[in-house]
Amino acid sequence: MRAVEIITKKRDGGALSRGEIDFFVQGITGGSLADYQASALLMAVLLRGMSAEETAWLTHAMVHSGERVDLSDIPGVKVDKHSTGGVGDKTSLILAPLAAACGVPVPMMSGRGLGHTGGTLDKLEAIPGFRVNLSLAEMKAALARTGCAMIGQTAQIAPADKKLYALRDVTGTVESIALISASIMSKKIAEGIHALVLDVKTGSGAFMKTEADSRRLAESLVSIGVASGVKTEAVITQMDTPLGAAVGNALEVVECIEVLKGRGPRDLIDVSLDLTARMLVLGQVATDREDAMRRARKAIDSGAGLERLRRIIEEQGGDAHVVDDYARLPSVADREMVSAPRDGFLVRLDAEAVGRASVVLGAGRDRVEDPVDPAVGVMVRAKPGDEVRAGDPVLEVHYRDRRRLDAAVALLSQAVVIGDERPASRPLIVGEVR
Amino acid sequence: MRAVEIITKKRDGGALSRGEIDFFVQGITGGSLADYQASALLMAVLLRGMSAEETAWLTHAMVHSGERVDLSDIPGVKVDKHSTGGVGDKTSLILAPLAAACGVPVPMMSGRGLGHTGGTLDKLEAIPGFRVNLSLAEMKAALARTGCAMIGQTAQIAPADKKLYALRDVTGTVESIALISASIMSKKIAEGIHALVLDVKTGSGAFMKTEADSRRLAESLVSIGVASGVKTEAVITQMDTPLGAAVGNALEVVECIEVLKGRGPRDLIDVSLDLTARMLVLGQVATDREDAMRRARKAIDSGAGLERLRRIIEEQGGDAHVVDDYARLPSVADREMVSAPRDGFLVRLDAEAVGRASVVLGAGRDRVEDPVDPAVGVMVRAKPGDEVRAGDPVLEVHYRDRRRLDAAVALLSQAVVIGDERPASRPLIVGEVR
Repeated sequence: MRAVEIITKKRDGGALSRGEIDFFVQGITGGSLADYQASALLMAVLLRGMSAEETAWLTHAMVHSGERVDLSDIPGVKVDKHSTGGVGDKTSLILAPLAAACGVPVPMMSGRGLGHTGGTLDKLEAIPGFRVNLSLAEMKAALARTGCAMIGQTAQIAPADKKLYALRDVTGTVESIALISASIMSKKIAEGIHALVLDVKTGSGAFMKTEADSRRLAESLVSIGVASGVKTEAVITQMDTPLGAAVGNALEVVECIEVLKGRGPRDLIDVSLDLTARMLVLGQVATDREDAMRRARKAIDSGAGLERLRRIIEEQGGDAHVVDDYARLPSVADREMVSAPRDGFLVRLDAEAVGRASVVLGAGRDRVEDPVDPAVGVMVRAKPGDEVRAGDPVLEVHYRDRRRLDAAVALLSQAVVIGDERPASRPLIVGEVR
Repeated sequence: MRAVEIITKKRDGGALSRGEIDFFVQGITGGSLADYQASALLMAVLLRGMSAEETAWLTHAMVHSGERVDLSDIPGVKVDKHSTGGVGDKTSLILAPLAAACGVPVPMMSGRGLGHTGGTLDKLEAIPGFRVNLSLAEMKAALARTGCAMIGQTAQIAPADKKLYALRDVTGTVESIALISASIMSKKIAEGIHALVLDVKTGSGAFMKTEADSRRLAESLVSIGVASGVKTEAVITQMDTPLGAAVGNALEVVECIEVLKGRGPRDLIDVSLDLTARMLVLGQVATDREDAMRRARKAIDSGAGLERLRRIIEEQGGDAHVVDDYARLPSVADREMVSAPRDGFLVRLDAEAVGRASVVLGAGRDRVEDPVDPAVGVMVRAKPGDEVRAGDPVLEVHYRDRRRLDAAVALLSQAVVIGDERPASRPLIVGEVR
């Protein structure tokens, strides 16, 4: 088998065989396939597409480029949740402790923030001492003790994905539904879970800008999961505007704790509860959706979710006192307000621009190896639909460096659009695929 | 400027700016652009295309990645010819001495055979002692003394093309009209010529299999030449069946000498004379096409062309006695005949299959660094349109290695198609672009 023939076949719109896809993935993992051949094939895949069958084979080959974790010695139906990434998208820190508190074991492997979207690992690391780089043995121990482990992708999990993702990032080949699907699902399948809830974001702050693309991605993800024996369902949620109020790592941790204390913003509560309820049903601790919602709400009201978060933080070496004392989290003293330029209604608060601004402030990164500043970020003070007067605060910028602030404010000012009429309210949960 | 933005722009069907194209070519030449980024962009260019303007900028940037040869101290209108490559396509060895003998200086930079198509350098090197790797100074001296120099591409000429071609060859990105055009024309423009005649092959043995694609390529090449101040015209010629009778390096040298002696196959003579006449008109030594044809024919009849070939061989260190004594050329004793399987008419003699068979025999190569065997090859004993009887010889295989012979004969048997009716004769010269 010759690499150039595989590339040419896909370039001309052909469907690759299972053997050809295995050859490609093994070549990438083992280093026998040159990066320049891989990237040419990735571009051909992006422009020509892959069938559901090819995508499933690709995922399978990527799973088998490493280990598939065996969690059979931990009782219960293991359920994870994955989001395709958004701005202020912090539901993992809420739903993982809630689901665990309700009896569902949650072995969660997350990623770091990249580009304008945040990542769970960066948020967790805003908690002093929190270790995300547990070994598989430590992960299992944590899962056994607290019903939850929140870690990064270990080297054993889908190594082909690591290489492919690094290559896609620098060759303009990220935005392919087949490649995104295989990347996400190979890691999730290799985790050894029984079921998976996907939060597929749609809108300006999401990877997929249109609902049609988001639905195609959701369908692709769910079909791969089902084909691999992982019960998978997807919710498509709005990401035109940041979720909740906080954007920035420590700020988001505070907001999650607030939700677990029964406070926090409505939109964040709604999405977190919806996702948690799905996990409880898939995890077979709730009989139906209604029962699941009741259990999830009760875990908030009783403080069981908050208590579980405290235990998770402790188990992974973090300072659990942050739950009671937010001053123990990193913060900056300097604030700058972005205000409404005139009277009217906030019709748009562009998630992508807020995300970009948070990268500029240092809360996110453009390159995977760059560090992030856990303290800086943006607090949303008004949401689309709110009536505002000229000078009213819309965004509160928490900054460390004045030059970065100026660039961030320039972006944020463009994110705020005031109109004369109240915009129609849009549903937060757009659809589901299962 | 970031490479990934340029890649993404082309991926999404955008037109690259001149600055973006310069950045890409300089990055390739200087090594600041990673090969995997270059190959992703090449695939995007292949699938999305490039406008005439982008292609001209790409060519210009590739010319300026190296030196543009200054031939101003050599009098006369310098004219070169380039073929897009075929099987048995040996016209350079005929038209270069003919045009030189008629007073047109011919500074010819050629390539090696690759895949099923042959290359002028390999043919020249079949002549014992012939040196194709002249320095620019030696090339100019040869041009001044014999009116012709036939050499390989020097390192100073379009180094970006060398890197890009090597990458395209292994990444399935060869078959792009824009990339082919820029590759050919950058080298030709950098040679310092005033005018160029292109032989764009069409058919099974050509790069471009359809007449429409061949015409598109011819138009692209001519428009780049004209934009760069090189008078350029193209002839589109048939390449469904090998040109002439000989396929294989030494065998082709013999056939070219035969043509210069006033013998040789009709189709080869016709194409060679057509191309020579165009060179004479562009080189301003003939007043019009008719005058040019007369001069070209006279150069054969008088022996001036043959005499000029003798001087060219001597000048470049070769054994000029081969012109009189073919036994001084490499040859093999072993022959095998591929015969007509039944009575009928030869309706097809597939050029690509004959070319592939000659690679199998060792006359060509699949990788640019592989050596070739100058002695082996195939002699065509019957041409499409000929009536044959079962057992009549169609192809005579000159082989060195019996295992290679078997593989070659298997290919050649498929190349021969016998039918019951004489096929309609097809014009050899299909069209022109100027």
